[in-house]
Amino acid sequence: MSTPEQRQLRLGAFLFQVGHHVASWRYPDTDAQGILQHAFYEHFAQTAERGKFDMIFLADTLAVVDRFKTNIKHTVTVRPEPITLLSYLAGVTEHIGLAATVSTSYHEPYNLAREFSCLDHLSGGRAAWNVVTSGRDEEAHNFSQDRHLAHDKRYERAREFVDVVTSLWDSWEDDAIVADKENGIFADPNKVHELNHRGEFFAVRGPLNLPRSPQGRPVVIQAGASETGKHLAAETAEVVFTAWQTLEEAQLFYRSVKELAVTYGRSPDDILIMPGIFPVIGATEEEAREKEALLQSQVLPAVGLSMLSASLNVDLTGYPLDGPLPDLPELQQVNGGKSRFQLVSDMARREGLTIRQLMYRVTGARGHRTIYGTPVQIADQLEEWFKGGACDGFNIMPPYLPGGLEEFVDLVIPELQRRGLFRTEYEGTTLRDHLGLSKPQSRFQKAESVSGY
Amino acid sequence: MSTPEQRQLRLGAFLFQVGHHVASWRYPDTDAQGILQHAFYEHFAQTAERGKFDMIFLADTLAVVDRFKTNIKHTVTVRPEPITLLSYLAGVTEHIGLAATVSTSYHEPYNLAREFSCLDHLSGGRAAWNVVTSGRDEEAHNFSQDRHLAHDKRYERAREFVDVVTSLWDSWEDDAIVADKENGIFADPNKVHELNHRGEFFAVRGPLNLPRSPQGRPVVIQAGASETGKHLAAETAEVVFTAWQTLEEAQLFYRSVKELAVTYGRSPDDILIMPGIFPVIGATEEEAREKEALLQSQVLPAVGLSMLSASLNVDLTGYPLDGPLPDLPELQQVNGGKSRFQLVSDMARREGLTIRQLMYRVTGARGHRTIYGTPVQIADQLEEWFKGGACDGFNIMPPYLPGGLEEFVDLVIPELQRRGLFRTEYEGTTLRDHLGLSKPQSRFQKAESVSGY
Repeated sequence: MSTPEQRQLRLGAFLFQVGHHVASWRYPDTDAQGILQHAFYEHFAQTAERGKFDMIFLADTLAVVDRFKTNIKHTVTVRPEPITLLSYLAGVTEHIGLAATVSTSYHEPYNLAREFSCLDHLSGGRAAWNVVTSGRDEEAHNFSQDRHLAHDKRYERAREFVDVVTSLWDSWEDDAIVADKENGIFADPNKVHELNHRGEFFAVRGPLNLPRSPQGRPVVIQAGASETGKHLAAETAEVVFTAWQTLEEAQLFYRSVKELAVTYGRSPDDILIMPGIFPVIGATEEEAREKEALLQSQVLPAVGLSMLSASLNVDLTGYPLDGPLPDLPELQQVNGGKSRFQLVSDMARREGLTIRQLMYRVTGARGHRTIYGTPVQIADQLEEWFKGGACDGFNIMPPYLPGGLEEFVDLVIPELQRRGLFRTEYEGTTLRDHLGLSKPQSRFQKAESVSGY
Repeated sequence: MSTPEQRQLRLGAFLFQVGHHVASWRYPDTDAQGILQHAFYEHFAQTAERGKFDMIFLADTLAVVDRFKTNIKHTVTVRPEPITLLSYLAGVTEHIGLAATVSTSYHEPYNLAREFSCLDHLSGGRAAWNVVTSGRDEEAHNFSQDRHLAHDKRYERAREFVDVVTSLWDSWEDDAIVADKENGIFADPNKVHELNHRGEFFAVRGPLNLPRSPQGRPVVIQAGASETGKHLAAETAEVVFTAWQTLEEAQLFYRSVKELAVTYGRSPDDILIMPGIFPVIGATEEEAREKEALLQSQVLPAVGLSMLSASLNVDLTGYPLDGPLPDLPELQQVNGGKSRFQLVSDMARREGLTIRQLMYRVTGARGHRTIYGTPVQIADQLEEWFKGGACDGFNIMPPYLPGGLEEFVDLVIPELQRRGLFRTEYEGTTLRDHLGLSKPQSRFQKAESVSGY
């Protein structure tokens, strides 16, 4: 069945609260307090590792999202800090990659470069950075700003930020540390480089105060699907996390990002496309549908409406739930979550959904694709997209945790393995090994004697 | 011997490179590459925990310190990122406190509050934040600033920063999370508070997106011994990390900080004073002296001179090593490391040391007190200061690692235990339990209905 040459799926385990569904914390088997307990996270990470996932993927928001006041009362608005949590999990796992979302709008590149480099050292080469620019005014208000930076400025800042960070990761060449006790030479100063970066947003001298990490650079992930976001991804990202509802859209995006990467001088294989998938697994398809119905029955209408309102940048309170959407703002008026806005409004248009129907799409999959069924049906749907040129793998978003991940690991992974689509053992040691990405050379290595020392 | 009522020493294990001595990486038994390897840190943390230390203490600098160009070549200029490392170590330890140095000059309070809160959650209440304002232009240059912020401004920023961070830690009252699945109520919005802080340096709305952590607030440590630093400590710190050479100076400092704390409305017991100690342990006093001589013999003169020059804010290159110090700058001209400057210049004056003699004081203990001898002699010296009203405990700075810590744990700790001065088992679970510090109430808890919701 499987041949060693067969292209392999890449899988991320998306860690979000106690499940991706907004009502997951009310689901019978979840522990709503798990979000505060290390045992919950250890179990998640170890389960994903048991399933041979490429990585754990941790999203983030830098605020309590309370634009709609029902949120604090009725939803889980707390979130562990990604660097802290993944560093903790590095100590209780051995193989799995650790991908943390950190915003370029509210951090300093020197601190961020150090945190990810240190995580890469401590984990033996398993760190990845998901670059986001953040999308909400709530976040700006926690960082001494009245409004969130405008979309284009935010991406210019992100571009420069990524450049500074990857330069810092390169600032010690791989063999800079000599540790010659006899002669008292700890490092070769000709292999340690200042950046002397002076750009529009940052001035950073460098070098980083950590040597080059096992992966050379932690893997860079990017998630924005706006035109600007796509260019940033095509130029700098090694993994693209994205959201598509239909095979055709996903194929189009896949081709266009790979082509765009080529215009930036990269190989199409240097960049992996991984859409999010919200799998609802049952012994039968009917059982899966019942499972989702149970989750949906626990969504308070005010909660669903506020989530949909936030996605669409419009207050839907007062509109009939079973009627159509009102007129929406223009895309260019949306600052933050542009691609989510487009996705949800397209979905409404394409399928002619009512407010209530649309509400249930965002409370579960949050704009990502929902697939239902038996393990075989789930595997069929993943295989169709994978073999159909729509993706290189998936970010799996279990509806509730840890149950939804356990089911995927125990039932779907073996089916994917039987089809020869997924590893049965980790073969390498680093996340780059798992993903089939090469270790980049330090940009300073080719230069002759550019050191400041 | 021991009575249950006897006041107990508090001990921190200072984690610095592969030892506090600048030549520790050349010492026969150290692994100079350990600084890159998780096994080195795990062994350190587990050894300190075996010794029942109150906490691990991690210093930090946000740059490669290369004002003197010999540094990169001849010294260890790389440093793990404290939050990342201590989060990692939380997963491989059970009891010991985890204290990380993070600068208020180059971070955002919302991020910092989240990181420490998350570490406190994951570790079950073992986090501590050592508040520093940073002291070097090298650091400013990595954070888009031409010069380090002036001393007074830096401390004003720090004061406001600490206030914002502790308010964020308080923003969810202890019982704000309800997790009532039946009625869909996750949290009580009346117990979740906005800060709406607008100060000179920061505007932060809050609340934090993490609930109150097991310690209520992670323990706050402060280390500046300048007058401004002392006031900040007396007002906000629960542990003061400090450096003194003589019993008299230490007693004076101890009394003055405790008295100052009282003027801020606090009890003297709310603030613990822990000087750094550089212990050189031998089977005999002579063996200890030989051990230090071996370490000193491995200090290249250029390295010693650059360290002393940095401490004194003056370039000593070219002065005869066996001659006296030249004239030094005035204290008020020194921006960053003021207390270190004062300490080293006082030492030179008091003991009439030559440049070479002084050099060897900073390459080992780096301004902290060196004590030599057998385990009994070491214990005698610690006891003298502890019972003499000079401190509440010590931050132990082993000359080389892990050997220097192992010797302390295997030889000195049992002697302190025999004298009834130190615990034989952890009694509580949190760092506050170890230190005998109470859990602070949320500042929002007494207020009636101040919530913004």
